[in-house]
Amino acid sequence: MDHATLVDRLERILGPGGVFHRPGDLLVYEYDGSVDGAVDTARPAAVALPTTTEQVAAIVELANEAGLPVVARGAGTGLSGGAVAQRGGIIVSLTRMDRILEVDREDRTALVEPGVINLELSETTLPEGFFFAPDPSSQKACTVGGNVAENSGGPHCLKYGVTTNHVLGLEVVLPDGRMVWTGGRASGGAGYDLTAAMVGSEGMLGIVTKALVRLTPQPESIVVLLAAFGDMDAASHAVSRIIAAGIVPAALEMMDALTIEAVEPAYHAGYPMDAGAVLLIELDGPAEDVRETTDEVSTICRQTAATEVRMASERAERDLLWKGRKMALAAMGRLAPNYYLHDTVVPRSKLPATLRRVGEVSKEYDLPIANVFHAGDGNLHPLMLFDRRQKGSVERVLEASHDLLHYCVEVGGALSGEHGIGTEKRDYMTLVFTADDLAAMAGVKNSFDPRGCFNPEKLFPKGYMCGEVRALRAQAMAQKLGIYAL
Amino acid sequence: MDHATLVDRLERILGPGGVFHRPGDLLVYEYDGSVDGAVDTARPAAVALPTTTEQVAAIVELANEAGLPVVARGAGTGLSGGAVAQRGGIIVSLTRMDRILEVDREDRTALVEPGVINLELSETTLPEGFFFAPDPSSQKACTVGGNVAENSGGPHCLKYGVTTNHVLGLEVVLPDGRMVWTGGRASGGAGYDLTAAMVGSEGMLGIVTKALVRLTPQPESIVVLLAAFGDMDAASHAVSRIIAAGIVPAALEMMDALTIEAVEPAYHAGYPMDAGAVLLIELDGPAEDVRETTDEVSTICRQTAATEVRMASERAERDLLWKGRKMALAAMGRLAPNYYLHDTVVPRSKLPATLRRVGEVSKEYDLPIANVFHAGDGNLHPLMLFDRRQKGSVERVLEASHDLLHYCVEVGGALSGEHGIGTEKRDYMTLVFTADDLAAMAGVKNSFDPRGCFNPEKLFPKGYMCGEVRALRAQAMAQKLGIYAL
Repeated sequence: MDHATLVDRLERILGPGGVFHRPGDLLVYEYDGSVDGAVDTARPAAVALPTTTEQVAAIVELANEAGLPVVARGAGTGLSGGAVAQRGGIIVSLTRMDRILEVDREDRTALVEPGVINLELSETTLPEGFFFAPDPSSQKACTVGGNVAENSGGPHCLKYGVTTNHVLGLEVVLPDGRMVWTGGRASGGAGYDLTAAMVGSEGMLGIVTKALVRLTPQPESIVVLLAAFGDMDAASHAVSRIIAAGIVPAALEMMDALTIEAVEPAYHAGYPMDAGAVLLIELDGPAEDVRETTDEVSTICRQTAATEVRMASERAERDLLWKGRKMALAAMGRLAPNYYLHDTVVPRSKLPATLRRVGEVSKEYDLPIANVFHAGDGNLHPLMLFDRRQKGSVERVLEASHDLLHYCVEVGGALSGEHGIGTEKRDYMTLVFTADDLAAMAGVKNSFDPRGCFNPEKLFPKGYMCGEVRALRAQAMAQKLGIYAL
Repeated sequence: MDHATLVDRLERILGPGGVFHRPGDLLVYEYDGSVDGAVDTARPAAVALPTTTEQVAAIVELANEAGLPVVARGAGTGLSGGAVAQRGGIIVSLTRMDRILEVDREDRTALVEPGVINLELSETTLPEGFFFAPDPSSQKACTVGGNVAENSGGPHCLKYGVTTNHVLGLEVVLPDGRMVWTGGRASGGAGYDLTAAMVGSEGMLGIVTKALVRLTPQPESIVVLLAAFGDMDAASHAVSRIIAAGIVPAALEMMDALTIEAVEPAYHAGYPMDAGAVLLIELDGPAEDVRETTDEVSTICRQTAATEVRMASERAERDLLWKGRKMALAAMGRLAPNYYLHDTVVPRSKLPATLRRVGEVSKEYDLPIANVFHAGDGNLHPLMLFDRRQKGSVERVLEASHDLLHYCVEVGGALSGEHGIGTEKRDYMTLVFTADDLAAMAGVKNSFDPRGCFNPEKLFPKGYMCGEVRALRAQAMAQKLGIYAL
């Protein structure tokens, strides 16, 4: 199908305002939030902006007819290249499907379209006493559909769990254009948990067109503690002690000196400029309980050599402390023209050793690394600072990343905490998964998308899905028989 | 392969003590906990009792060679026929793989073999301050592997979630004998969530040989309230008020007059014999918080016309109140020789109407129905009481069940809360799932088990997996085109 016919057919489905196809209009769809160099950019043939499920199904059917890939996209804030059309084809932008269809106070659920902005959902339901718990740092821009695709986390996932814990059911358009509902309003269920299989599948198994999500009751009281420490080791020690005491903070975030150096002059959040590390500890629940736990946490911080412990209970004070954390990425431009943000998780007990390793990598590769991360659940976010105009700098960053990822996996960690694999980390998959593991995942992919048309070039190692499954199977067999021909 | 050869080959893998093959030895493996008549019983060719993952893999390979089905089995307490070998073949009994391999206090995890008894895991970790939250009523007997296969719930799942929320990773032997690990110790992860796909898949996608589970910190304080009401409507009203107040009890269970009549004389749990319904409300957390919430819940119960509210905070008192609930099924023998326990979930808001419908069904079919259930999450457990020696009684029970299930689905409920579909409810699947939904599930099944050898005759409607997938696809297409040829 030639380009003009494709555009014409799309316009017949969506109307002329629902299709972008001129190079200038396509430009912003060539990227997502990830680092150019770590993830290839690419131009789609067209961007379709549906407003109904039926239109999504019609676009998918057209793509099948034309033999084109289909890439679903929300706000494009992703950090692993998941919304980039590396093999071209049609980008289905879901930003115009942005209605909150229903809020059910009694069953504590909301039925939303995929383009609803994460923060807007919480802001809409807050007057009724509820919020949507997953809160990625990009929550002012990112969409619920994108959260579902990447199984997004955020600071409050320590207590409340990641996106998959808050999705009850999904309306999905499958790669052959069929529409199915997974899960539902009642707890429990029947059959295989296709909702769970869909969450975090990075747009490779289906396009979510409606999501039934769980709402969380607003706690009676919220307190944010700021605790400053001489170094990250002392702060890590406090983290361990808090968790070991059986306390589950709503959030438990760490920022190092380099992060404070970037953030404080920009936002005046009130972080002490001379601290080696600060912790933001949010406690929520019944007022009396929060008071008690605040005392307990303050005591632990002082015992673990905090140089300062400050408490914010009013909304405005709390928001200011959080602003520094949530805007940390934006402030990094003060330190270097470019950064590469990693997202890797280690078991909580391995946190101090891993932070030391980050320090070593920084020295070995002569690369400043800022640490701003979800300490409570061991989800590191080392930010490698560089200037891409310096020759070889991107390569140095990628090598340092390679080292760091290897280390995290060695201590029992995962490749990604909340940003997905996408194109960025696809070639690292063999670090954590055996050929058998990958073949099991490929089986699931093939069962939903035998033609491989939904978001190609993601998740699986390069070349894996192009007829190499059989070869991998052979490798698996060789592994099993002890013939390490890999 | 003839029977003698099969037994010989199995004994070569497992030793002579590891294989049951004489009719007398096989008898107990012909049943599970479900009702004869609702679920067909069947004799396996042999029962294999492995002690290692490698033995499980070898059994599966032998089954493939012999062209025999493989049915994994834990304690056999299931209520939907999931552990019965309806097409014969080899039952893999995992009761000898019963070791707790590791308890990690800092990361709050336990690595266990599938045959570990649910309650034993909590009892082992309690001295360290932890418990395993899913607590089915059969927890004294049922195994963690069985819990994973059925995604089991229990009273405490209201606050803590069902099994899938407590499983971090699984070692699994797949239908072709390969062994894979899904998930892992670090939060987050990468790739499709195969752990979630495996939990609740009723032994049809793989055999779990190790489970890495989450441990939950023991709360500081636990209180159980007993509240008695004139009828179920008043008790339901109290449930709604408690939930609407933003309180999340650890458990919120209801028992009706018929249940009290069976339980109280048997266990002397202290339920008032003249009550129309009682609620057991467990509250846990920090001591001060529990005290406050206890007052609040007591007030709500009195406002909603509770005739009595009693509090138990000491372990022995609490255990006695719970004993009546947990032993309710065992006590039903006092009322009738047989019972058929249903497991269906409705949105919490539909609970009062559904309970009224249960009462109507009881009258229409002249069938006493006792109600003992997880009220907090709308998970009904109507117990139909009958005497199978009376001609036509089983048929009457099945017809009443049919009516009740239809009603629950109509109000937005699910077929099963925590007992699975198995053989029992397979033919009801089309009530809640479209042909497209089922085809998506069948795709997943086929991707793991193209030969259909793992636990056949479960989950999918009768005949569905025997080459009828194509026909169902055609139906799906017809549905889509509006040709309702079904």
